[in-house]
Amino acid sequence: MRILYHLPLAPSCRKVRLVMAEKRLAFELLSEDVWKKRPEFLSINPAGEVPVLVEETGLTVPDSSVICEYLEEAYPDTSLMGRTLAERVEVRRLTAWFDDKFNREVTRNLLFEKVFKRFYGKSNPDAQALRAGYNNIKFHLDYIAWLSENRTWLAGSRLSMADFAAAAHISSLDYIGDINWEKNPAVKEWYVRIKSRPSFRSLLSDRISGIVPPKYYTDLDF
Amino acid sequence: MRILYHLPLAPSCRKVRLVMAEKRLAFELLSEDVWKKRPEFLSINPAGEVPVLVEETGLTVPDSSVICEYLEEAYPDTSLMGRTLAERVEVRRLTAWFDDKFNREVTRNLLFEKVFKRFYGKSNPDAQALRAGYNNIKFHLDYIAWLSENRTWLAGSRLSMADFAAAAHISSLDYIGDINWEKNPAVKEWYVRIKSRPSFRSLLSDRISGIVPPKYYTDLDF
Repeated sequence: MRILYHLPLAPSCRKVRLVMAEKRLAFELLSEDVWKKRPEFLSINPAGEVPVLVEETGLTVPDSSVICEYLEEAYPDTSLMGRTLAERVEVRRLTAWFDDKFNREVTRNLLFEKVFKRFYGKSNPDAQALRAGYNNIKFHLDYIAWLSENRTWLAGSRLSMADFAAAAHISSLDYIGDINWEKNPAVKEWYVRIKSRPSFRSLLSDRISGIVPPKYYTDLDF
Repeated sequence: MRILYHLPLAPSCRKVRLVMAEKRLAFELLSEDVWKKRPEFLSINPAGEVPVLVEETGLTVPDSSVICEYLEEAYPDTSLMGRTLAERVEVRRLTAWFDDKFNREVTRNLLFEKVFKRFYGKSNPDAQALRAGYNNIKFHLDYIAWLSENRTWLAGSRLSMADFAAAAHISSLDYIGDINWEKNPAVKEWYVRIKSRPSFRSLLSDRISGIVPPKYYTDLDF
């Protein structure tokens, strides 16, 4: 069986899980506590990070972007990357936007500070980071709202990798109660559509010890 | 004429310049002081970062990874991404290694602190960052040495995007005198080969005001 090393709330891993589920690829999830720097895991991925996909053939594919490019080439039937060159640029631009910019400006300041930091033996959430995260998320949610009001899906008329990259971050932040849905109805309308997809089910059943998600977290019509 | 918005010493821009030159694509270089947040530039790339490629058709492609994937699809003749799925995974894995991990652990701590930080109106280089950078670069140079001793080029038997991603960082750090060539003969042997390529010429003529590169910086046989 195909294996995906992951961490339950990590958006980079959630993106890959969504993409694999959309492509109907069966896989076993193995949770890897990367902060323990397990030698066997480092020999699989010297970068020491999740996600890592290991195919039944033994082919090992690390890094969420590398995995997604690989999945498009190896399993092109359900393409999530767009058809024309211009469509593919827009899908990849927005995917990189969420993977890099949203991650650095929002997710790292909120999710890492509140959930993952303690695993690295570090202290309480940094107040300055939290403030920056709460400030930045407003602009990013406005951008998602603008995209979803002007297009059927974030990158254009077709559902794409960009929607899953964004939904991966939003879903993890929703778990810790950091998405204000009342103030962001356009984002909610888009998120309801993507959250209702069968590929989303596995994500919504993740639980992290010590953190209970809000009641509406698993509701498809919240 | 095709335009590439860039910053002279930025490795992400250098990687794209090398790849475009290898593919024999003519382009005009425009230096963009991203810290000035010029509204016209933000309308081209809302992420506010370089590199950004603008094709003659008007198609705008931001982000060094997105540009490189686009160039492979639009101009496939000189492929730098490998042929088989496994080769392509290895090329993309190492390219991401240099773009992300090397950048975060080495380049940000040395090049950003010493050169770019002042443009953002920030203070002198942070001593802790410099220490971390000088410590981390040793392990990364050992890894490049190991790869180049065990393979013809970094990702395997063929010259690839991974070599240009690595050479982009190494060349910028060499400009500020931060590569100890005497201690890293295997890295030097690989770098001499890649530095001698015609695609490298334009990079070696970059100059940043106030910082003079070491004498050997432009020597092809140093």
